[in-house]
Amino acid sequence: MGSTTTTTPDIRLSTDLISHLQKAIPQDGTRDSLLSSVIPSLLKSVAEIARDLQSSHHVSAAGTSNIFGDDQLNVDVQAEAHIRQAITSCPTIVTASSEEDPVERPVVHTSSSSSSSSCHEKYTLAFDPLDGSSIIPSNWTVGAIIGLWDGPSALNTPPSKSQFLSILGVFGPRTTAIIAIRLLSSLPSICLEAGLDNLTQTWELTRPALSLSAPNPKTKYFSPANLRSASDIPQYAGLVSQYIAQAYTLRYSGGLVPDIVHGLVKGHGVYLSPVSERHGAKLRRLYELCPVALVVECAGGEAVEFERGGRRILEREVRETDERGGVVCGSGEAVAEAVGRLFA
Amino acid sequence: MGSTTTTTPDIRLSTDLISHLQKAIPQDGTRDSLLSSVIPSLLKSVAEIARDLQSSHHVSAAGTSNIFGDDQLNVDVQAEAHIRQAITSCPTIVTASSEEDPVERPVVHTSSSSSSSSCHEKYTLAFDPLDGSSIIPSNWTVGAIIGLWDGPSALNTPPSKSQFLSILGVFGPRTTAIIAIRLLSSLPSICLEAGLDNLTQTWELTRPALSLSAPNPKTKYFSPANLRSASDIPQYAGLVSQYIAQAYTLRYSGGLVPDIVHGLVKGHGVYLSPVSERHGAKLRRLYELCPVALVVECAGGEAVEFERGGRRILEREVRETDERGGVVCGSGEAVAEAVGRLFA
Repeated sequence: MGSTTTTTPDIRLSTDLISHLQKAIPQDGTRDSLLSSVIPSLLKSVAEIARDLQSSHHVSAAGTSNIFGDDQLNVDVQAEAHIRQAITSCPTIVTASSEEDPVERPVVHTSSSSSSSSCHEKYTLAFDPLDGSSIIPSNWTVGAIIGLWDGPSALNTPPSKSQFLSILGVFGPRTTAIIAIRLLSSLPSICLEAGLDNLTQTWELTRPALSLSAPNPKTKYFSPANLRSASDIPQYAGLVSQYIAQAYTLRYSGGLVPDIVHGLVKGHGVYLSPVSERHGAKLRRLYELCPVALVVECAGGEAVEFERGGRRILEREVRETDERGGVVCGSGEAVAEAVGRLFA
Repeated sequence: MGSTTTTTPDIRLSTDLISHLQKAIPQDGTRDSLLSSVIPSLLKSVAEIARDLQSSHHVSAAGTSNIFGDDQLNVDVQAEAHIRQAITSCPTIVTASSEEDPVERPVVHTSSSSSSSSCHEKYTLAFDPLDGSSIIPSNWTVGAIIGLWDGPSALNTPPSKSQFLSILGVFGPRTTAIIAIRLLSSLPSICLEAGLDNLTQTWELTRPALSLSAPNPKTKYFSPANLRSASDIPQYAGLVSQYIAQAYTLRYSGGLVPDIVHGLVKGHGVYLSPVSERHGAKLRRLYELCPVALVVECAGGEAVEFERGGRRILEREVRETDERGGVVCGSGEAVAEAVGRLFA
């Protein structure tokens, strides 16, 4: 894929990918670390998680199928470690927390990297290193969810203003990553797909612009999460019946990343995760909903809360790292239709 | 995983895997080619398809996202070629046809392999090299479906007697394969999972016995294919509502292989693909339903036709390679419950 630029040891980003990323990043020196260390380091950790997953049946092979529980745990822990390790060489990421360790703590950097620290860039990372653990044993596609925020904390600040970058790592037959960036109103926001070339360890630009707002999509898709709650919420049950009657196509893997990415790649999709008293919210706002909402919005879609009658996810600050919520997101007209029915 | 046996160039089967396969294969010389060439060659082709898929975003990277249509086609064609190539070194596979080229034709063998041909073994291969093409662009898990039949044709013979081996290749974060064998009533039938170690190119035994008949499964899963037909079939719509009310968990990727494998790995699952006049049958009996039905039965489950009121899939011969049908399959008690409702 033409020439590449070495950015971090053992990983490359193609020049195509870099030039597309640059479209959304100011070139005035205020965000230099994003391309010099942050994005390459995070993409390197995504590649490392993929490599771990490729061999993750080894442990289960040592004994009965029950041992897989432990193996799976190991994969979670390894994924967490790869991302934690990656950011030690990113001096501008000063704080981090994750779904596995949900406490915001200062990042300790390697001495070589901190010496080149820039003063005006200070970021907080919030991530879910391996989402979809229930479908790992069956070898279904799973993902990583990473959000980057301005400032020393992701809490108590409007996500729409502070969270400016999301990366969804997608671990399937290939290794891909969705990257969304929204910084200045004077620059375009982007939502693109990169694909890892295993041989050269180069991330290449595979889809320059993902869109959920394609006019007149050939097929419409729906992805109904927490479907059990439909027995408590007649509007949800009615909406699902309506999708069936309107010949929407069902795709629901149960992994948030693959379910969202499916719509992005197809150009249409609506993902619903309503919440009832008996079947409560599972999705974490900081580690799952906010990064996914940024991706969806950068692709021209919408992401709204279930509980508050359709308020934009990114409007309301996160107060605790463990906060959870429901969501309706995807193509704008489909979200509007769903909200209209759910809150009728 | 301990010592391994070289069986075919560039691919190994672990001794654990071989000894488990041997449990279902007579050791009297009548089926020698299964372990000496057939299974290793087919598993080699599964590994090759996985490797192709890992780099299949390259072509799409060359231009716009529309180019992916061609790329995807290439992957289909390459998968077909890998399996066709594999069987040229299997002298006992005398006939083959596939979903991509659905005409039974004699297999032309390489001269070195045909010279060692055994007379009493004559098999027919029927396969779908890459099932789930609609979810390849979104990087979801897809599969290959391979069935092996006794004799020079798979047509006009009861599948329950003639089809004795199935391999489902599973291309996800890992590369795995489900292998089911049912030969003599005096030998156990088996349904196991093998996992590919990428570094050593060795297939290891990862799950020695997959079962759909586990008593009291913790979670029950349903996978409703062709859901659009529920608007024509009130019994199907009612059954889906019943699953929701009974707190079954939805998993539906739209890929037949991952959807079936999910149940096998979890120990419970019911997959339904009803058929209505407006939303007709898509699944091919020869290339999809028969091999999958053997896997399900070898795991202790059931696979029945939708159209004929619950008759066993493997009872009725395939007359044309392109025949299609509906199916209800999975855990026995769930299949019985579904059949009772669908045909009430």
